[in-house]
Amino acid sequence: MTLKAAGRGLIPPFIVMDVMRAAAERAAAGHDVLHLEVGQPSTGAPRKAVEAAKRALDADPLGYTLAFGLDRLRERIAEHYRASYQVAVDPANVVVTTGSSGAFVLSFLAAFEAGDRVGLASPGYPAYRNILASIGVEPVLIPVGPASGFQPTVDILKARGERLDGLILASPSNPTGSMVSPTALAALSDWCTAEGVRLISDEIYHGLTYEQTAATAAGRGGAVVINSFSKYFSMTGWRLGWMVLPDDLLRSVECLGQNLFISPPTLSQHAAIAVFDCLDELDANVARYARNREILLAELPSAGFERLAPADGAFYLYADVSRWTDNSLAFCRRMLEETGVACTPGVDFDPFEGHRHLRLSFAGATEDMIEAARRLKAWRK
Amino acid sequence: MTLKAAGRGLIPPFIVMDVMRAAAERAAAGHDVLHLEVGQPSTGAPRKAVEAAKRALDADPLGYTLAFGLDRLRERIAEHYRASYQVAVDPANVVVTTGSSGAFVLSFLAAFEAGDRVGLASPGYPAYRNILASIGVEPVLIPVGPASGFQPTVDILKARGERLDGLILASPSNPTGSMVSPTALAALSDWCTAEGVRLISDEIYHGLTYEQTAATAAGRGGAVVINSFSKYFSMTGWRLGWMVLPDDLLRSVECLGQNLFISPPTLSQHAAIAVFDCLDELDANVARYARNREILLAELPSAGFERLAPADGAFYLYADVSRWTDNSLAFCRRMLEETGVACTPGVDFDPFEGHRHLRLSFAGATEDMIEAARRLKAWRK
Repeated sequence: MTLKAAGRGLIPPFIVMDVMRAAAERAAAGHDVLHLEVGQPSTGAPRKAVEAAKRALDADPLGYTLAFGLDRLRERIAEHYRASYQVAVDPANVVVTTGSSGAFVLSFLAAFEAGDRVGLASPGYPAYRNILASIGVEPVLIPVGPASGFQPTVDILKARGERLDGLILASPSNPTGSMVSPTALAALSDWCTAEGVRLISDEIYHGLTYEQTAATAAGRGGAVVINSFSKYFSMTGWRLGWMVLPDDLLRSVECLGQNLFISPPTLSQHAAIAVFDCLDELDANVARYARNREILLAELPSAGFERLAPADGAFYLYADVSRWTDNSLAFCRRMLEETGVACTPGVDFDPFEGHRHLRLSFAGATEDMIEAARRLKAWRK
Repeated sequence: MTLKAAGRGLIPPFIVMDVMRAAAERAAAGHDVLHLEVGQPSTGAPRKAVEAAKRALDADPLGYTLAFGLDRLRERIAEHYRASYQVAVDPANVVVTTGSSGAFVLSFLAAFEAGDRVGLASPGYPAYRNILASIGVEPVLIPVGPASGFQPTVDILKARGERLDGLILASPSNPTGSMVSPTALAALSDWCTAEGVRLISDEIYHGLTYEQTAATAAGRGGAVVINSFSKYFSMTGWRLGWMVLPDDLLRSVECLGQNLFISPPTLSQHAAIAVFDCLDELDANVARYARNREILLAELPSAGFERLAPADGAFYLYADVSRWTDNSLAFCRRMLEETGVACTPGVDFDPFEGHRHLRLSFAGATEDMIEAARRLKAWRK
């Protein structure tokens, strides 16, 4: 008999992975590539974090930790909320996870039943909807664009008038870099509380902001806050993130975590305790992102990339390229072939308008941004 | 309005975690504890693996890898099948995962729909049934005991006469240490193929065997083989495992992996490439386990622990203690209080007979085994 395979595995791949493969093949063939497709820092972990990892390698057998992670790290994360946001967070509500990915899986499983409906902005990070769908939860895409600053608003939610069980907010957002203001966050949070909607606040790009600091949902009613050591903290492949959980989900996430992950990577946890002492080094990374962003914002419009989402945070520019194409995937391929500039078509992020958009990452070297802008101007002139 | 929380989070915790907490509290209060409750090696990663990690810390920014892991590691794992089992495995079918935990999540999601039924032995590793239940798949517990060597057999499956979509085999098994012979594995695999049942072969305790080497299901039809660097390879907290997948699940697992995990921990992957060059050091660990096992098998019967499952592999003895109790949790607590020997009640592993069983781990130091046997003999005499 033929073996069954589950339909839920048939979720779309990240197109960005295919672009990365094409870029890698081009580089392997001896052509140069400017990597504006990557969604991660080009820097490694800060020096003191690397040193802490080496010390742990010498001193610790690196067995399992508790499912919630090392207490010292949970305390250090709670301190981070006091120092960076002036928000009191009990270490008992801090849960260390295997990347923000692990946090999404655990919080979605704990908060939502099969058949529940969870709203999320489109464009947005595709894994949200793919994880939800894989566990039988219905992702409800909320199209957003320039009119609302590429973020959902209470007015949009009210106008839709539909039942939701959860709402995912991402501020700063991948791919648009857009943010919700503190006032807008409070209004959305209050609406969620009034409507019985579980708020999931993806804060993994906090710290990477250029116009305003980001507001946290930590401490707001039943909100789940998700963060990561992969972006601002520059520890991407270490696969470590965290959640700030409301009391009512703690026990459930602990049991799920024991079963689905056992514990987050131990060495990464030891390194992460030290990373909060590396803010100078990390802020120097942010200064480079800020310079890269300024260069692209100054140069790209004269290459015809004029319609950009408000890149207030993260390290992405999201460009409307409908003046040239309604096939952003083909457009990105041609851009790579003809200029060596790799970027990501919007179709990963938005089934509605993604075929008219692309994402440019400015996480790389400043000289690459200057050269990419020069080539794109020559290409589009 | 009150926020909902999903019922699937309300899965049982690992009782072993509560026992570990009680043991830790006892130790913190100044009493000595002999740790026969732990399910992990007391050793750290082998020397060359630690050195490889340090080199990678200096040389690599440690960003994401591909979802399937580093090609060099996948090739090295494929070589391991040729060297250790004389089985040809294509590196393209090897998928590196975030521990065997990540492999269970990905393979269960890819292979089984909500509502599917998956058979598994009881006693067995509780996370199997808890992960299955959390994604809406029905775990079908198959009670096994001394009559079938604590493993399911084709006769048992035929006699049950029920529809199954999958079957999980664990050889060696946690908690019993029992194994299926190569002949029995072939028969079970053939039965699965004939009946259209997806075989999931948990081989994470391979390499930790004392009477016979373990047979692999790699290369057998549609079987999913799951393994780990946490047990024989002694890299527990590094959270790294792997699968050998049949072709029909590869694309689905790749897409799920990209979305649910992005990639396994990068530093752990670099270290794991080196761990296959450390077999001497690892086999010395196994020799210690073998000595520990001999001590307990020789001494425990005279303490009254006479009815033991066949501990052919892993590092566990599973003891029937029904002569003394039908409340193994209370029995374990009393044993800890009165002797300082920590162990795990069977209720984690078996809802049917677990209240009459307990699990003793011999992963620790040999002197601890000698002392534990001495104390248990004095306690039970």
